[in-house]
Amino acid sequence: MQNNETMSAAAPRQLDRLDGRAREVMFTGARTANSFADTPVTDAELSEIWELAKWAPTAANSQPLRLLYVRPGENRQRLVKHMDEGNRAKTASAPAVAVLATDTQFHEHLPAVFPVRPQLRDTFAANDAMRSATATFNATLQAGYFILAVRAHGLAAGPMAGFDAAGVDAEFFSPGRYRSILVVNIGHPGERPWFGRLPRLHDDDVVQWA
Amino acid sequence: MQNNETMSAAAPRQLDRLDGRAREVMFTGARTANSFADTPVTDAELSEIWELAKWAPTAANSQPLRLLYVRPGENRQRLVKHMDEGNRAKTASAPAVAVLATDTQFHEHLPAVFPVRPQLRDTFAANDAMRSATATFNATLQAGYFILAVRAHGLAAGPMAGFDAAGVDAEFFSPGRYRSILVVNIGHPGERPWFGRLPRLHDDDVVQWA
Repeated sequence: MQNNETMSAAAPRQLDRLDGRAREVMFTGARTANSFADTPVTDAELSEIWELAKWAPTAANSQPLRLLYVRPGENRQRLVKHMDEGNRAKTASAPAVAVLATDTQFHEHLPAVFPVRPQLRDTFAANDAMRSATATFNATLQAGYFILAVRAHGLAAGPMAGFDAAGVDAEFFSPGRYRSILVVNIGHPGERPWFGRLPRLHDDDVVQWA
Repeated sequence: MQNNETMSAAAPRQLDRLDGRAREVMFTGARTANSFADTPVTDAELSEIWELAKWAPTAANSQPLRLLYVRPGENRQRLVKHMDEGNRAKTASAPAVAVLATDTQFHEHLPAVFPVRPQLRDTFAANDAMRSATATFNATLQAGYFILAVRAHGLAAGPMAGFDAAGVDAEFFSPGRYRSILVVNIGHPGERPWFGRLPRLHDDDVVQWA
């Protein structure tokens, strides 16, 4: 699609960068909250989180992530009972909770969202293993985007993998189609909302150069 | 760990939000680049990308993502031959390329990075299926963080799942330990760097409320 002559002739476009304050909001200053103030999180705020996260990239624009926002009340109790014991109190008390799931039938949307190769729908329909792997991988990428989009809105995220996924699926979703992958508490941080920051690996244990 | 009485008494901390320009950089204005200007990307820039991405959360602070930065030259050619044909030209011409992999032995670091439960190392050592699932899931979350951290630095990312992962692993990594999950081209956008923006799903197809 491109060659080096064409690219050398192009004036590089300078993209904007995040300033130091925005980097703190998204990465260096943000923390996983374990307790929340009782300031409500509005449905409009929750909709705006997705309005940001939805633009980040997925393979073949497949967008397999699905969200279930569970507000306080009876439905929250239906969710809490499927959380691991150590996650129940914070999930019960968060102003909002999102269940993140992957749509194993995401390929049905491909002709609409990836019109350049509408035949991909049938390719995925014919290959359950590839479809499942693509659904899980891309929904998980989108879960990463989602967590950062929560932060972009000035809210704290509390992602939790400790829950009974099959139980949550049976409780809230049509049989067999969605598979929940992560539960995320959302709110303003409360009192003593986080522990001391845990160490990150040394760069030498993570980054290689070739 | 918390109760509602304590939380009601807490003054909510107001976290900062991203302004409109920063939202554009990260989400609404950012695009996946398919061609790059020949402006170099320095090793310092590549190190800074990880310096941001490493702070975003993983389960039990497990941090299973590993990065291999492949600079132009002979090593790049070793990578390009494992890319799907449609990805070869852009991978060959990108100023920098990152291979993102998961460390299947991430649990060896847990006593250092999650000292509150050092026994988790042995739990993961004894359960290959759980260890593999945790490695893949959390490294994929981190891949999402990484793509957004590239953007935070004013660079365009070009993530690609179309490559021979087993071939890349055999080419660059110790046998059996790392499994590559994504390859990301990094640079300043070149001429005609992206196609028309593809449609996102309607919110009604993604977001449910309970």
